[in-house]
Amino acid sequence: MQRRLFNNLSSLLKRQQYKQPYIYHSVSYSTTKSVPLTSETYSSKVSRNPNYKKLDAKDLDFFKSIIPETSIITDNDDLLFYNEDWMRKYRGQSKLVLKPKTTEEVSQILKYCNDNKLAVVPQGGNTGLVGGSNPVFDEIIISLSSLNKIRSFDPVSGILKLDAGVILENADQYLQEQGYIFPLDLGAKGSCQVGGNVACNAGGLRLLRYGSLHGSVLGLEAVLPDGTIYNSMHSLRKDNTGYDLKQLFIGSEGTLAIITGISILCPARPQAQNVAFLAVNSYEAVQKVFVEARKELGEILSAFEFMDQTSQVLTAKHLGISHPIESGDYPFYILIETSGSNKEHDDEKLENFLGAAMENGLVDDGIIAQDESQIQSLWSWRESIPEASTMYGGVYKYDVSIPLKDLYGLVEEANKKLEEAGISSLEDEGKPVVAALGYGHIGDGNLHLNVSVREYSPQVETVLEPFVYEWISSKKGSISAEHGLGFQKKNYIGYSKNDIEIKLIKEIKNHYDPNGIMNPYKYV
Amino acid sequence: MQRRLFNNLSSLLKRQQYKQPYIYHSVSYSTTKSVPLTSETYSSKVSRNPNYKKLDAKDLDFFKSIIPETSIITDNDDLLFYNEDWMRKYRGQSKLVLKPKTTEEVSQILKYCNDNKLAVVPQGGNTGLVGGSNPVFDEIIISLSSLNKIRSFDPVSGILKLDAGVILENADQYLQEQGYIFPLDLGAKGSCQVGGNVACNAGGLRLLRYGSLHGSVLGLEAVLPDGTIYNSMHSLRKDNTGYDLKQLFIGSEGTLAIITGISILCPARPQAQNVAFLAVNSYEAVQKVFVEARKELGEILSAFEFMDQTSQVLTAKHLGISHPIESGDYPFYILIETSGSNKEHDDEKLENFLGAAMENGLVDDGIIAQDESQIQSLWSWRESIPEASTMYGGVYKYDVSIPLKDLYGLVEEANKKLEEAGISSLEDEGKPVVAALGYGHIGDGNLHLNVSVREYSPQVETVLEPFVYEWISSKKGSISAEHGLGFQKKNYIGYSKNDIEIKLIKEIKNHYDPNGIMNPYKYV
Repeated sequence: MQRRLFNNLSSLLKRQQYKQPYIYHSVSYSTTKSVPLTSETYSSKVSRNPNYKKLDAKDLDFFKSIIPETSIITDNDDLLFYNEDWMRKYRGQSKLVLKPKTTEEVSQILKYCNDNKLAVVPQGGNTGLVGGSNPVFDEIIISLSSLNKIRSFDPVSGILKLDAGVILENADQYLQEQGYIFPLDLGAKGSCQVGGNVACNAGGLRLLRYGSLHGSVLGLEAVLPDGTIYNSMHSLRKDNTGYDLKQLFIGSEGTLAIITGISILCPARPQAQNVAFLAVNSYEAVQKVFVEARKELGEILSAFEFMDQTSQVLTAKHLGISHPIESGDYPFYILIETSGSNKEHDDEKLENFLGAAMENGLVDDGIIAQDESQIQSLWSWRESIPEASTMYGGVYKYDVSIPLKDLYGLVEEANKKLEEAGISSLEDEGKPVVAALGYGHIGDGNLHLNVSVREYSPQVETVLEPFVYEWISSKKGSISAEHGLGFQKKNYIGYSKNDIEIKLIKEIKNHYDPNGIMNPYKYV
Repeated sequence: MQRRLFNNLSSLLKRQQYKQPYIYHSVSYSTTKSVPLTSETYSSKVSRNPNYKKLDAKDLDFFKSIIPETSIITDNDDLLFYNEDWMRKYRGQSKLVLKPKTTEEVSQILKYCNDNKLAVVPQGGNTGLVGGSNPVFDEIIISLSSLNKIRSFDPVSGILKLDAGVILENADQYLQEQGYIFPLDLGAKGSCQVGGNVACNAGGLRLLRYGSLHGSVLGLEAVLPDGTIYNSMHSLRKDNTGYDLKQLFIGSEGTLAIITGISILCPARPQAQNVAFLAVNSYEAVQKVFVEARKELGEILSAFEFMDQTSQVLTAKHLGISHPIESGDYPFYILIETSGSNKEHDDEKLENFLGAAMENGLVDDGIIAQDESQIQSLWSWRESIPEASTMYGGVYKYDVSIPLKDLYGLVEEANKKLEEAGISSLEDEGKPVVAALGYGHIGDGNLHLNVSVREYSPQVETVLEPFVYEWISSKKGSISAEHGLGFQKKNYIGYSKNDIEIKLIKEIKNHYDPNGIMNPYKYV
């Protein structure tokens, strides 16, 4: 069996010739069908708050007085990118995008908006998955794209300070040159911005190893609605002087403040990396392999991802190549990554672990990448799933935490529900739903349930919601593991938080944003 | 040279025969000299707030109606342990200690105190180092000691739920039986409580490896001043549904709420552990060894501690045994710990690293522990320093973050200042100060400056403060890396935080504790 594990490698090398698996927006913007307005799709659930002022010429004059006209977008075509989300599910009606270049400009803009009750939406790379960075009505979009400089890096401590608008992949490439790694990695890295990542408390692929942003972010600079610049850009690993207020802004999705700068602790870049892609015969085997991997690979385990069969079928179709595990048709696949300081030791640990797992019958087939390009190729079978899920037209995404033993049950239940409703078929193009599929970060108890659809339809939504949230709540899970609440889950927080928690959250919102101008109609 | 490194081992085995290096209070309570009242020592700085009600018989009757009399302490002798800190520097005048056994009892107590403006001090193991857990005047002490049960443990996820009053070492021993480790370790582990650890955001010996409590604490249960029970005892690694409010309570030192329960993510217990104790000739060499260790030991490095010569001279005197590195008289010592999943791999990494470090002339002498008892012995030369520092009568402790290159400069400057003032001598018993010594967590940029004294005196304090804080501020450090602000540093927060940060901190204090009953005269 173990020989089989390595036999696939030569064929893998021949077959996988595509590059750039990270082009994230390519699918969604290839279609011309227009995205319906959020305010129309959800007209029964949301209406414009008349307390907010409507933008007028005087407001525009003010903004022109503080930032150059090249930083102001009012053209309808140009606005579209900022009004729509990449899933093509949400579309706002903003008439104005502002792209400040400095924290001071952000401060002046926010103060004016707050004084005049103009609602705003902060926006990073616009790669969010819950409609959190798009306006619902005519909110002004404040894009952080032009605030995009690396501020400083200390190669002894590994502490990086940078503007919020730096693209994640650019930050990581900068660090690579210094022998360090950004402690966050996710599929959208080529487009998403670090400020958005922090505002949404992004989790991603290596949380298992590098922990959450609540631990790695050491300091923030953020602008409060009244224009106050909260400058807490500390570069100390430990600092117990006062409440750790920055933590409130991590994961607040732009509802309290606009993050403009980040100080973050970056680990040394691992000198050795391995990726294994495995096929197993049941979800039970996925769990067992995980428990063994954590024990045997210990400190070098840096990712443990699982993918179901449907996700791989769609991804193969999307990428247009055949699957790395040729014999195909396994119900589950696992991607294991190790990162360490000694290649020889890591190889030995991984080979011992895989040998034992195959001998025990836990793993049925598999591949170990032999070089960097194979590592990228194997990762693409995991990272391309989000795009593959939208290839038929759209996707309903649920990103949830569920105790491990129950985790995959949600995908099975969702498929059952959709089939019972007679609206799901892989082949029949007359059905709105293609399939429900599951994948995600087993190591974090985090499932991504994607329901791939040919079109968005209230019928599909009615089958899925609140069923999905009720199911998660019954298992004491979270209705949002890492994607946040945004617009999509605003009304469902009660499935994950109790009344007192929600009350205290609303009090904090009111404490910092009494006029409610920050990213309204969302979150809580 | 490398042979020398191992030659010491046989002699080490013969010499080190003591056990239990963790008896933390043994020194401080051996003397009978009484501790002066905080209100008298600092009479010019603090006076009782007349808004607080004074305890009367009616109040006592109420408390007796909700908790049994065995949970109420009013006897003066018994109160002493709770009124005094272990450094014998602070003494309050509380007439009442309450020891609730349930969260519900804590809620009833706090609600009553808030309604009646009775000030309170939450207290865990009373091992704090800034007077934060002792009353200043007549505040009621709410001890969490009786709220001390393990609630649950999930061996698949490694998530532990427990009461705030569980002693850290007990929690870790429980986890050891399950193959897990508590992600926090510190010298006071035999006395300190996990609730106090979280309330003070304790850092400790292995933050380098397991990160801060802001990352590992997954949920909290806490009682707000008005009696509201904030139950957020989640057991999910990822949960992005609403502001992460628990983060505010981590490190709030009992000024916002009383933490009653904790849900925490625990790592698998390492299967292999190594400790090396090294002697080096300069502070520059300490830094170089650290940079090399992080590179070569990478993912298995779990502690990197340094100690100066004076700290080892006092510790040898305190322990009554000779130093493990016989040839003695090196200006600096380093303790390196590795924790991994494969003993053979770890040994090889450590030996390669040390071999190279000795060949390069970075390390002059050293020992590698050969078994668990030697590991404990070597650790005791680091962990006994706090007790050794108090052996002459008392200690002024400064726990600070400073960029690495400047870190030890503070100890040198402090010694210079004390000598210039003519109040410092290792031998002359007529001088109040024995010596300033330095040690700490190099890996975190965290220095412990201990000024060992024969008696506490305003003269000493005048030399040290605000000089120490000004020096730290000039290096952009933090005046409290992990000990917190408490009473000692309340007035010095301005050296680490700017006006806006302080304003926002005070607003949060006022938001949750408008009557100011929670741990007054401290923090901000």
